[in-house]
Amino acid sequence: MTASLENLRVVLVTPRNPLNIGAAARALANFGATTLRLVNPHDPGFRTAPSAVGAEEILARAEVFPALAEAVADCSLVVGTTAAARRSPTQPLHPLPQAAAALQAALTTAPAALLFGSEKHGLTNQDLTHCHWLLHIPTAPGQPSMNLGQAVAVCLYELVRTAAPPSTATHPDPANAAQLERLTSALLEALELSGYTLPDQTALTEQNTRRLIRRLNPIEADSELLQGMLRQILWKLRS
Amino acid sequence: MTASLENLRVVLVTPRNPLNIGAAARALANFGATTLRLVNPHDPGFRTAPSAVGAEEILARAEVFPALAEAVADCSLVVGTTAAARRSPTQPLHPLPQAAAALQAALTTAPAALLFGSEKHGLTNQDLTHCHWLLHIPTAPGQPSMNLGQAVAVCLYELVRTAAPPSTATHPDPANAAQLERLTSALLEALELSGYTLPDQTALTEQNTRRLIRRLNPIEADSELLQGMLRQILWKLRS
Repeated sequence: MTASLENLRVVLVTPRNPLNIGAAARALANFGATTLRLVNPHDPGFRTAPSAVGAEEILARAEVFPALAEAVADCSLVVGTTAAARRSPTQPLHPLPQAAAALQAALTTAPAALLFGSEKHGLTNQDLTHCHWLLHIPTAPGQPSMNLGQAVAVCLYELVRTAAPPSTATHPDPANAAQLERLTSALLEALELSGYTLPDQTALTEQNTRRLIRRLNPIEADSELLQGMLRQILWKLRS
Repeated sequence: MTASLENLRVVLVTPRNPLNIGAAARALANFGATTLRLVNPHDPGFRTAPSAVGAEEILARAEVFPALAEAVADCSLVVGTTAAARRSPTQPLHPLPQAAAALQAALTTAPAALLFGSEKHGLTNQDLTHCHWLLHIPTAPGQPSMNLGQAVAVCLYELVRTAAPPSTATHPDPANAAQLERLTSALLEALELSGYTLPDQTALTEQNTRRLIRRLNPIEADSELLQGMLRQILWKLRS
């Protein structure tokens, strides 16, 4: 995780449902953002929303403003979110993956705001006039409108993803050829003892089994595990 | 939007809160997925959850199963979601951005399942044994646990974002979960008959064996080949 969301201000404009405010706070906590701002929240009881699991502190410190202009006053960049259908034709509109890179770049130098409108109508035309540009989450044409908490989570995920250094995922050790060949031999012996291998087809069965083990291509630990299983099965087949 | 999520089955395992089920359905609608499956939902009243805005039809058609194995039986790839802290050390764990590419590639050829556990505890160790591999959403270390509906939305967003033009390479048919489970059962019986399974460790051996088969992840033809080998070995072990 990067600390690059420290400069981000997530601004909910006239949110109605306290559960959505809590869910938004939880998303901030999940992705390392800290500053939640509310413009005229409908329900003053939002600070105890049970949906803010693990984000109680963010919700307690959420700042409330009477007007959008005040909520974004310290920000050098203000970005509005909108369903594509409701775009303002006079402002640039970028899909989230591209928008995140620009927003992330801005966050490295100064505070920036990401605005979300009310559950029912989104940001108003008046709200949009405060924005430098707009972003939309690429959604299905038939159902473009997202739940507020889910939209916040998706945007913050993308901001963190965009900032992340390349993954250094670890991979388990692969088995080497000698281990695969030992496994092949043990399986061939079990096939022989069980009567699977037909007397006139031993060469064919050997080829097919060797190919099978290479296609399965177990990691080293699994190769050892299978070898142990086969050892016991062989002991029983011989007895 | 691409139609590439048609093969995706979003599986919620023992979800408790109908509002979360509805929110998950809404995320499916937002990102063009259609198939929601539930394993033992706690509250039978979920079908009228008001949170499923625009996703009423997905919720009405959601399929309910008594056991996870049945919910993923037609899937050639089963991926579990987990907070990184709860990872099983024996299964590969990939961050969502990398995982989405692999899942998206699998979806071009066959049905695949993405599993989400219950709100409180996530997927159980038993659930995880049905998975080929696991993914986690890269979250802040202090608050890794996401809301269910938000986690579904973030995963589907990433799958749509990752959607690549269809690959023209041909791949052999993968085995589906029902075939892998049959293979698991046959191997378990061989281990039992041979004395490999210790009497006080049958549950552990079952979990380890199920995980092993998912890691090996044979193609359909190899799954059948192994099944035939095990059938003959079992016949001999019984006689």
